[in-house]
Amino acid sequence: MSSETAVARLARIDVGGPAHSAPSGDFGLIGLAVMGQNLILNAADHGFTVIAFNRTVSKVDRFLENEAKGKSIVGAHSIQEFVQKLKKPRRMMMLVMAGKPVDDFIELLLNEGGVEEGDIIIDGGNSHYPDTNRRTNYLKSKGIRFVGTGVSGGEEGARYGPSIMPGGNEEAWPYIKDVLQSIAAKSDGEPCCQWVGDEGSGHYVKMVHNGIEYGDMQLICEFWVDLAFQAYDIMKRGLGLSNSEMGDVFDKWNHGVLDSFLIEITRDIMKFNDDDGTPLLEKILDSAGQKGTGKWTAINALDLGMPVTLIGEAVFARCLSSLKAERGRAAKILDGPTPKFEGDKQEFLDNLEQALYASKIISYAQGFMLIQNAAKQYSWKLNKPEIALMWRGGCIIRSVFLKDITSAYRSNPDLENLLFDDFFNKAIHKAQPGWRDVVSKCALWGIPTPAFSTALSFFDGYRAKDLPANLLQAQRDYFGAHTFRIKPEYASEKYPEGKDIHVNWTGRGGNVSASTYTA
Amino acid sequence: MSSETAVARLARIDVGGPAHSAPSGDFGLIGLAVMGQNLILNAADHGFTVIAFNRTVSKVDRFLENEAKGKSIVGAHSIQEFVQKLKKPRRMMMLVMAGKPVDDFIELLLNEGGVEEGDIIIDGGNSHYPDTNRRTNYLKSKGIRFVGTGVSGGEEGARYGPSIMPGGNEEAWPYIKDVLQSIAAKSDGEPCCQWVGDEGSGHYVKMVHNGIEYGDMQLICEFWVDLAFQAYDIMKRGLGLSNSEMGDVFDKWNHGVLDSFLIEITRDIMKFNDDDGTPLLEKILDSAGQKGTGKWTAINALDLGMPVTLIGEAVFARCLSSLKAERGRAAKILDGPTPKFEGDKQEFLDNLEQALYASKIISYAQGFMLIQNAAKQYSWKLNKPEIALMWRGGCIIRSVFLKDITSAYRSNPDLENLLFDDFFNKAIHKAQPGWRDVVSKCALWGIPTPAFSTALSFFDGYRAKDLPANLLQAQRDYFGAHTFRIKPEYASEKYPEGKDIHVNWTGRGGNVSASTYTA
Repeated sequence: MSSETAVARLARIDVGGPAHSAPSGDFGLIGLAVMGQNLILNAADHGFTVIAFNRTVSKVDRFLENEAKGKSIVGAHSIQEFVQKLKKPRRMMMLVMAGKPVDDFIELLLNEGGVEEGDIIIDGGNSHYPDTNRRTNYLKSKGIRFVGTGVSGGEEGARYGPSIMPGGNEEAWPYIKDVLQSIAAKSDGEPCCQWVGDEGSGHYVKMVHNGIEYGDMQLICEFWVDLAFQAYDIMKRGLGLSNSEMGDVFDKWNHGVLDSFLIEITRDIMKFNDDDGTPLLEKILDSAGQKGTGKWTAINALDLGMPVTLIGEAVFARCLSSLKAERGRAAKILDGPTPKFEGDKQEFLDNLEQALYASKIISYAQGFMLIQNAAKQYSWKLNKPEIALMWRGGCIIRSVFLKDITSAYRSNPDLENLLFDDFFNKAIHKAQPGWRDVVSKCALWGIPTPAFSTALSFFDGYRAKDLPANLLQAQRDYFGAHTFRIKPEYASEKYPEGKDIHVNWTGRGGNVSASTYTA
Repeated sequence: MSSETAVARLARIDVGGPAHSAPSGDFGLIGLAVMGQNLILNAADHGFTVIAFNRTVSKVDRFLENEAKGKSIVGAHSIQEFVQKLKKPRRMMMLVMAGKPVDDFIELLLNEGGVEEGDIIIDGGNSHYPDTNRRTNYLKSKGIRFVGTGVSGGEEGARYGPSIMPGGNEEAWPYIKDVLQSIAAKSDGEPCCQWVGDEGSGHYVKMVHNGIEYGDMQLICEFWVDLAFQAYDIMKRGLGLSNSEMGDVFDKWNHGVLDSFLIEITRDIMKFNDDDGTPLLEKILDSAGQKGTGKWTAINALDLGMPVTLIGEAVFARCLSSLKAERGRAAKILDGPTPKFEGDKQEFLDNLEQALYASKIISYAQGFMLIQNAAKQYSWKLNKPEIALMWRGGCIIRSVFLKDITSAYRSNPDLENLLFDDFFNKAIHKAQPGWRDVVSKCALWGIPTPAFSTALSFFDGYRAKDLPANLLQAQRDYFGAHTFRIKPEYASEKYPEGKDIHVNWTGRGGNVSASTYTA
């Protein structure tokens, strides 16, 4: 389907006459799926008159007759009506599928809707940040202010206060600040919505947020349970805890350093029974998708050359989970050890808590390394304390932990790495013995802990002044004449510092180094 | 620099008159960097008359006066001369930098060189496979047969027999088979060069080869040494072996299941001393690049949703190595345990060998999972036994191991996974105890083993009928109404099999599931 066709089709939805009354709308929202509906209700609760539109117009009527009834929400049945019902400069937010639908609606607003110079279009979906870069600049050239904003918090967050991460054309910020900060979550009185930066930086920060969310969820899964007995989970196999006991552990953890939304809902999920009185969790298929922003984060990390290993492993863990049928066949022909736990259960539970905490510190340290590098690479000025603050409340990864990160960056905005902050430095040193114990035992027991393990390997690699990559460089020069550099302390006339050096390792072959061929 | 400008500039290099003698060239090669020069010498050794051309023409003369002297190698000083000196159908190979230079030379050959219908252009560089897809189809439309081929083996391989992996327009194969198979390595009498498949499949298979090479190198680094005392390596820190002893270990391993080119050169590197009699290795900067095909492989794995974790970790390990200065600062403020080895040294060395062997099996299993999935996704018919055979000799990852993989796929071309093959199934079961011992101990010792660990986690996840991804799906449905599916054995009227199910976990919120918004 060509772009024109889609636009034309959208325009045909309703060509009813113009609305004749004076515009009453403070804020317009396109897209009445779960996030859109809840954001509208949220904005209405805060006193804004919201104009609602949806491609399938029947959804508008259904919404008005049900959830929206009696609230300051007005339906629009065509794109023209939608635009005309908004006060100027118009503030219009889309919550539609990322990709082509966003471009289609932009064209529709431009060509059929009658938007005017100075109007503001906000894309609140999960768009990929390069698209937002492009759209910001495209619409700027037409006098329209474009904002791409991450919105996190799911259904509940959208309804009662999400985390909102807007970036794009900064001229729009003074006009949209009131409505976005009103509907956003508050953390210690501060709205979890601040201006992020230029172009696609709002969507970029949301992307990294989602990557971190992948990591957090994987970390919880790694020490949590598949309640079926065949599962290779730490608690069930290793400690033989009952379902109810497991819920209690999460409840306890939710009152300490791990206090967070994801731990809280995990507790609830543990305790959620099906009609037959057994845990619903046990019945859910263990096959997770990964086509979204977690993957983008991992790819971006590879592109920027940043070792964001924990998110990478979390994405791959979802890939592996999705090979459900193949795993079933593999389980029949691949044996492992039978884990038997001996020792103090409470001590091991405490170690587990430390393993999760330490791995989480690594994951966030990696995430901020990535953001820091992206800011440099893309010439964005990003405010790290405010990013941590935006994630502090409303969103899926909200936690007490992010308050500590906010403090770390507020006390030193130029902090090189979270691990250099006193609080986190102490925390990770304290967590180390328990963390190592868990990773070590799970390796022996046959319980997969890809995220705990990669976090520990990263920590041990990061704190290593010297890594064996010198061997790797020697190998590359040996087989491909790819050259290496010399450690400054060993620089000599023969091997000068900062120069690409090739050695004839075999005494055979030529002395040509590889300038145009990279293996 | 625009494309036109570059082409024009290339064309201007030499506009001397046409060559008047009858064409004598069997094979033409463009690009006289290390790989190109060596491939030319190799082809000349096999009785072919090779026409050599290079953008910087002075390189042609230098080459003719030195390495090429007295051989059946003829220089060309312009692209016209290059083309005219070749017999028809012309067989022309480029070994130039991947990317724009390849397109520039193609245009130059088309517009200035005078190539004719039926001529064959071979790109032997490290092009990204989507570019090769595009070029194959573009040149087909002009009657030119295009082949994109991976060439592996580095300097030595190119000179005495590389692994060659050609794909693209199959019409070319009968005309290029003789020269490519002649110059290729032989393994047990079979040339390590077979037709791979359509479009960019040759470069794709080379890309995965390179990813696996990254993995192999990382595995060797992980149990090898930074000879400086600060290094966190297993042998040096854990076992206190001398440099010479370490070389001996590699030498011994090179006569067993690990017999391979990379183990062999590692032995040589260990024993290679600088003029002052100390190991050169110790002086090489431990900072490795990763901008190449390893990264592409990891990104492709993410795109195809295949858990190719070991290559992913290997790429990230290079990223971490490149943060040399930051690691130096981190080393000062992050402590770890002081590893002390107690126990039987020989036993631990044997366990190490098993850890490397088992991790390598996982890495190749993952690599073939990726290739298998790509074949499906891109509609390429790929011959797995022949791919293993092509990697068997000549290339950087050549090894006895690949003979076993060739056998596995020859005895069952539809093998679902290497781990389902009897030989590898037995091998990995035998290796398990030692592998677990190494990963477990290194976690306690503070020695980073990202590749060993991720391989073990993959193995334990792959052989798990049930993984905790059900919790992950429950979380996603809880916070974002993303729905889940039910395990077939628990399907009911309320929760039917194969349907997307949303549950109202909190009793609050609506019943709208997320159709257009994916967190």
